[in-house]
Amino acid sequence: MFDVQTIRRDFPILAREVNGKPLVYLDNGASAQKPKVVIDAITRAYAEEYANVHRGLHTLSNIATEKYEAVRGTIARFLGAADEEEIVFTSGTTEGINLVAYGWAMPNLGPGDEIVLSVMEHHANIVPWHFLRERQGVVLKWVDVDAAGNLDPQAVLDAIGPKTKLVAVTQMSNVLGTVVDVAAIARGAREKGVPVLVDGSQAAVHMPVNVDEIGADFYAITGHKLYGPSGSGAIHIRKERMNEMRPFLGGGDMIREVHKDSVTYNAPPMKFEAGTPGIVQQIGLGVALDYMMGIGMADIAAHEQAITGYAMDRLGGLNWLQVQGRAEHRGAIFSFTLDGPAHAHDISTVLDKKGVAVRAGQHCAGPLMDHLGVAATCRASFAMYNTPEEVDKLVEALELCHELFA
Amino acid sequence: MFDVQTIRRDFPILAREVNGKPLVYLDNGASAQKPKVVIDAITRAYAEEYANVHRGLHTLSNIATEKYEAVRGTIARFLGAADEEEIVFTSGTTEGINLVAYGWAMPNLGPGDEIVLSVMEHHANIVPWHFLRERQGVVLKWVDVDAAGNLDPQAVLDAIGPKTKLVAVTQMSNVLGTVVDVAAIARGAREKGVPVLVDGSQAAVHMPVNVDEIGADFYAITGHKLYGPSGSGAIHIRKERMNEMRPFLGGGDMIREVHKDSVTYNAPPMKFEAGTPGIVQQIGLGVALDYMMGIGMADIAAHEQAITGYAMDRLGGLNWLQVQGRAEHRGAIFSFTLDGPAHAHDISTVLDKKGVAVRAGQHCAGPLMDHLGVAATCRASFAMYNTPEEVDKLVEALELCHELFA
Repeated sequence: MFDVQTIRRDFPILAREVNGKPLVYLDNGASAQKPKVVIDAITRAYAEEYANVHRGLHTLSNIATEKYEAVRGTIARFLGAADEEEIVFTSGTTEGINLVAYGWAMPNLGPGDEIVLSVMEHHANIVPWHFLRERQGVVLKWVDVDAAGNLDPQAVLDAIGPKTKLVAVTQMSNVLGTVVDVAAIARGAREKGVPVLVDGSQAAVHMPVNVDEIGADFYAITGHKLYGPSGSGAIHIRKERMNEMRPFLGGGDMIREVHKDSVTYNAPPMKFEAGTPGIVQQIGLGVALDYMMGIGMADIAAHEQAITGYAMDRLGGLNWLQVQGRAEHRGAIFSFTLDGPAHAHDISTVLDKKGVAVRAGQHCAGPLMDHLGVAATCRASFAMYNTPEEVDKLVEALELCHELFA
Repeated sequence: MFDVQTIRRDFPILAREVNGKPLVYLDNGASAQKPKVVIDAITRAYAEEYANVHRGLHTLSNIATEKYEAVRGTIARFLGAADEEEIVFTSGTTEGINLVAYGWAMPNLGPGDEIVLSVMEHHANIVPWHFLRERQGVVLKWVDVDAAGNLDPQAVLDAIGPKTKLVAVTQMSNVLGTVVDVAAIARGAREKGVPVLVDGSQAAVHMPVNVDEIGADFYAITGHKLYGPSGSGAIHIRKERMNEMRPFLGGGDMIREVHKDSVTYNAPPMKFEAGTPGIVQQIGLGVALDYMMGIGMADIAAHEQAITGYAMDRLGGLNWLQVQGRAEHRGAIFSFTLDGPAHAHDISTVLDKKGVAVRAGQHCAGPLMDHLGVAATCRASFAMYNTPEEVDKLVEALELCHELFA
């Protein structure tokens, strides 16, 4: 049974204070805290079982390789992928999407070819496509969200034209919390023969994900948001797309043979994994995903939905605060602005004095800020270990801000 | 004063046994073990001070950002770089050299332009250049080593022609242990107006490095060989070269503004650092470099030179064993083959039974294997914590191999 207090005790940092107050960590959209099992796994990996992977034939190297490679299966299970050979290790979503941009899109797209994006993408799912625009004349086609922050799958499909070569959308906005029906987008795009990339950075944290059911071609996740180490991550790539890709990073492990005048590449997924990887980070990510699956993604989602509803009620009751985005399907990420002259940065600084950690700024979503017509927002983003009482503390601290700045 | 037994106690894994024997870890060329201070720093970072960096305004984010950004200065000090803004964080040498290949070479080199390489480069310093050969007709010019494994700087400079746009060489061979006079190469290449990239993956572990004295344009290091975490690293890039580079990975942090139809990039070094970085890995790398500098690079080098001399004597005394490479300037990396039918893999397996961890294979150096005319070698590579007694244990285990396979 899901018990948030038991879960909280698994996360050492949640016991600490900030500015003399108990930490209320609501910056999970930026990065999540780590359970003790993950931290302990990292310590054990370095203190007892460390060596480089893949090319050793000694005991420590074999242990490290087994533990590291087993994570591929763990990620496949977490994502509902039938074949673990479709999982490529990355240092996070940014590297994953750049792998698709450099490895698949650059060699396959030409001038005038189009990429369809939603206006609420994160810069990680925008800037790699701007590179294609700048460097080879690819056209970016943007799909707006409605006034509530919903992204209509049909609007995305309607944007697909004869020159469209890729649709790249998030499954969950890191600013508005909007959950996108990426399965509908993938289904419709497939009928039109257009591959789909899904940025799962936020969604995979908050709800059960099944890439086979979603049916996208690329699905990227980032470990540090999934209660795993910084520098860990993966991308699921369908075999057909893998076969269309050239290698991205060059170095050891991704090759079969290297001579002076020739090089042949390893089979996927190794073809896309160059050099000594983030060995211990990926081992830690495996432990984090096992921890999440042990609790149960459905239970995590249910807990967070309860928090979402409560936070929406409480924040919605403040008539001097504007929640940005009230999509029908949404998760526990809330961006807001306050009446009055206070900048989002000032608000986050005041909240911090009360121990409440939120983020302020553009949230790596420039086009969405343009769309909303705001320079910046504050963002409170929740995780499995957050409680309704922490929503109350957020509201109390916001009320103080309102008094200070109104 | 350098005391190897004191140092050994700093590394928890060195107390363990393998196959019932005390671990003799001689696979440092692949990856080094970690001192307790590094492991503890990782634990502290996650258990007490973790948040995402750069864009937060709350206490934990500020602590993480300060600790993370301070490492840039630590790396600059470690490398003797005058300006920490010339340090770009990477996940290791592979990413560092790919950054140069994609960010600097691809936009600046055309068909027929040449890159000069030594035959003893690691695949990380070969495959990215093969990409340029395959994709845009760049020509790779190879400089051989002599029979002893020396690389004559003048031979490298003589290979520079009017079409040469880059020289890319290692400072220390990961197979032969040869130390290359990269300062002489950089000086001569500069006179000819040709930039130089130095792969410092091995050299920076074993000797004091000063990039200002070397005078190369790019100097790449990898943290996991420097007693730091996997997935950490950096590259030193001279300002002039940085200004000639386009961004490589696209995402958060490396931009100034992102709109639907335009993007502007951050100033270097941030321009080359996209997305959530390896926060805790780089913090750990900083601790590792401080640990090395605390012991003193000159003392580490002197200790390893003593080991090198002793190992050369002992291995040289085995007339059924061939040490590959006997360069005049060399460090504590030894590759060897044995008389008889035993494959290098068999030898490493037997050594492992005696607790001795060495690597067997091509060592990511295909062209050098071709040059040596061998399919594979065994490699014993030493670190600051190795002892003459461990050389004896290696030799004992090799004598057993000789008995078994001769």
